[in-house]
Amino acid sequence: MYKISLITGDGIGPELSESAVSVLNAINDKLDLKFEITKLSAGDRSLAETGKALPDETINAIKQSDACMKAPVGESAADVIVVLRRMLDLYANVRPAKSYPHMPALRDDIDMVIVRENTEDLYTGKEFSFGNSAVALRIISEDASKRIAKYAFETATQRNSMKKVTCVHKSNVMRITDGLFAKACADISKDYPDISFEEMYVDACAMNLIRQPEKFDVIVTTNLFGDILSDESSQVVGGLGMAPAANIGDDFALFEPVHGAAFDIAGKNIANPSSFLLSIKMMLDWLGNKHNDSKCIEVGEKLESTIFNLVKSGVKTKDIGGNMSTSEFTKQITDNL
Amino acid sequence: MYKISLITGDGIGPELSESAVSVLNAINDKLDLKFEITKLSAGDRSLAETGKALPDETINAIKQSDACMKAPVGESAADVIVVLRRMLDLYANVRPAKSYPHMPALRDDIDMVIVRENTEDLYTGKEFSFGNSAVALRIISEDASKRIAKYAFETATQRNSMKKVTCVHKSNVMRITDGLFAKACADISKDYPDISFEEMYVDACAMNLIRQPEKFDVIVTTNLFGDILSDESSQVVGGLGMAPAANIGDDFALFEPVHGAAFDIAGKNIANPSSFLLSIKMMLDWLGNKHNDSKCIEVGEKLESTIFNLVKSGVKTKDIGGNMSTSEFTKQITDNL
Ligand SMILES: CC(C)[C@H](C(=O)O)[C@@H](O)C(=O)O
Ligand SMILES: CC(C)[C@H](C(=O)O)[C@@H](O)C(=O)O
Repeated sequence: MYKISLITGDGIGPELSESAVSVLNAINDKLDLKFEITKLSAGDRSLAETGKALPDETINAIKQSDACMKAPVGESAADVIVVLRRMLDLYANVRPAKSYPHMPALRDDIDMVIVRENTEDLYTGKEFSFGNSAVALRIISEDASKRIAKYAFETATQRNSMKKVTCVHKSNVMRITDGLFAKACADISKDYPDISFEEMYVDACAMNLIRQPEKFDVIVTTNLFGDILSDESSQVVGGLGMAPAANIGDDFALFEPVHGAAFDIAGKNIANPSSFLLSIKMMLDWLGNKHNDSKCIEVGEKLESTIFNLVKSGVKTKDIGGNMSTSEFTKQITDNL
Repeated sequence: MYKISLITGDGIGPELSESAVSVLNAINDKLDLKFEITKLSAGDRSLAETGKALPDETINAIKQSDACMKAPVGESAADVIVVLRRMLDLYANVRPAKSYPHMPALRDDIDMVIVRENTEDLYTGKEFSFGNSAVALRIISEDASKRIAKYAFETATQRNSMKKVTCVHKSNVMRITDGLFAKACADISKDYPDISFEEMYVDACAMNLIRQPEKFDVIVTTNLFGDILSDESSQVVGGLGMAPAANIGDDFALFEPVHGAAFDIAGKNIANPSSFLLSIKMMLDWLGNKHNDSKCIEVGEKLESTIFNLVKSGVKTKDIGGNMSTSEFTKQITDNL
């Protein structure tokens, strides 16, 4: 039995959370894998109701769970997710971008993953203003850089792909900070002789993600570049409808969709739950590996292929050209699991 | 008569410079507009030969010219271009992205321009290391932010387009620095009631440049985001083959292609000179406006339409599916001017 903490979020978050709960319950019932789900509040609604975007009860409940699922949060997102990433030391933000059938990807042979450093760079909140100027500190450490590099090379080792790691930085301008990051990655690359290693400037990468996205396997980069490039790569494979993310630490992990709270379509039962459901697949993988539970991994594969096959057969939500509502599409998944 | 200083650069730089000189000479001969060109060295070759990427003679000659053209520079690019931008206070980096006929753009109705702040952010070289950590300072000032915002709104006012400015930042994470930048843009927007104003997070922008590039008119952003987004937008309209840039200050301006030195194809007479030649068009516009010389503006339009018509009729270089060499394509332009 796994304890799952679930932040239900803002905007389309609650609808996606319902969809996720249905899927986890169906796995409970049909596939003999037990989950106990605790729903938690965090985000704009929590801020308005309790004065805190991330209440202590939520933090405590997360700490008592085996893994956390987080639906999108609204304007206070940074106060929830950036804080949790750092507090729980979830240092690897893992964002796959894969061409799915019948999605409007730029090509149909894209299969990459962005491994984004998740604890430092411009995300530590160290900012100051002086008169009418301001300064933010971009912090890069050797330890965090080596740790994320290692994670990226391990990921490349495990993937059935071209076994390549691309380190993305801007060391021609940020010679010291990105010089350090690039060197840390190059150093770690020596421990992985079977994985090829290349470096690319972030501007060139932003271009190459459109020009030749099929040439990427694993991208490793600093926090803010990873933020930008992962949104871009989601669109390269056809949009945020199928873009999950995992925030992984040594002992704990949190799973979320790449997309935001999408207030414009909230409450209409039209949001595509796939990104969030594919993040369940990432959670099942992570739980399976951590607890040596092959059942988890099997079920994760089953969940992904169910979504994949539905979309392929044209059963999909409106954002990607189908006509299913959130709940209808979810039911198709639970029926087909 | 205009004095043009020309940095011939590295890699494909010298070939592109030859092409530019031919075009400027043809304008001299045929279109009754006089240029005096001074070739200057800067970049990797200069560094190897003189120990300086940007020699004093080059700086002095630039200062005595009416405008500077800069071909791409190699590994020492930052020591040339970042230094010149700051030294000459060329605060606006202007990068149009337009769908040209027969270019592999994502859509055929894209017509935007990125106005990138060019003097601060993470480009001031303020970086420090402490033990095995390092920090870079991201500096944002109200003056520089308002100045670039004003430039962006003036640009939107002059363009025949949808009259919209999109301010791109990441103030949900960098609340103080990007908060300041966003507020400066919002403040300036009040002086331009006919221009609509919107704000967008940089990650969403990286996505929307692929999803709905036709919805953008003028994007205004900080230095590093502008670097990344302009390379991306070049690829959105079909690649760096047709991507010029202008670095503009109150009294002086420098024109360059967005692309780099491309050492892999250097010396082969196959590079596409269009980005550099379209930057001549931007120079002619700037000179025309500055010196109230309508002839310049006319010739600039003629140059752009000549390139446009050649590409449309299939007369183009290999990178964009044609079969012309650099010099053949240049001759087609000079013949058709
Ligand atoms: C909401 C925001 C703070 C967050 C980030 O920048 O990391 C989001 O864009 C993401 O990528 O998860
Ligand atoms: C060469 C490099 C310093 C430069 C930059 O980052 O500004 C280049 O990428 C550009 O965009 O002109």
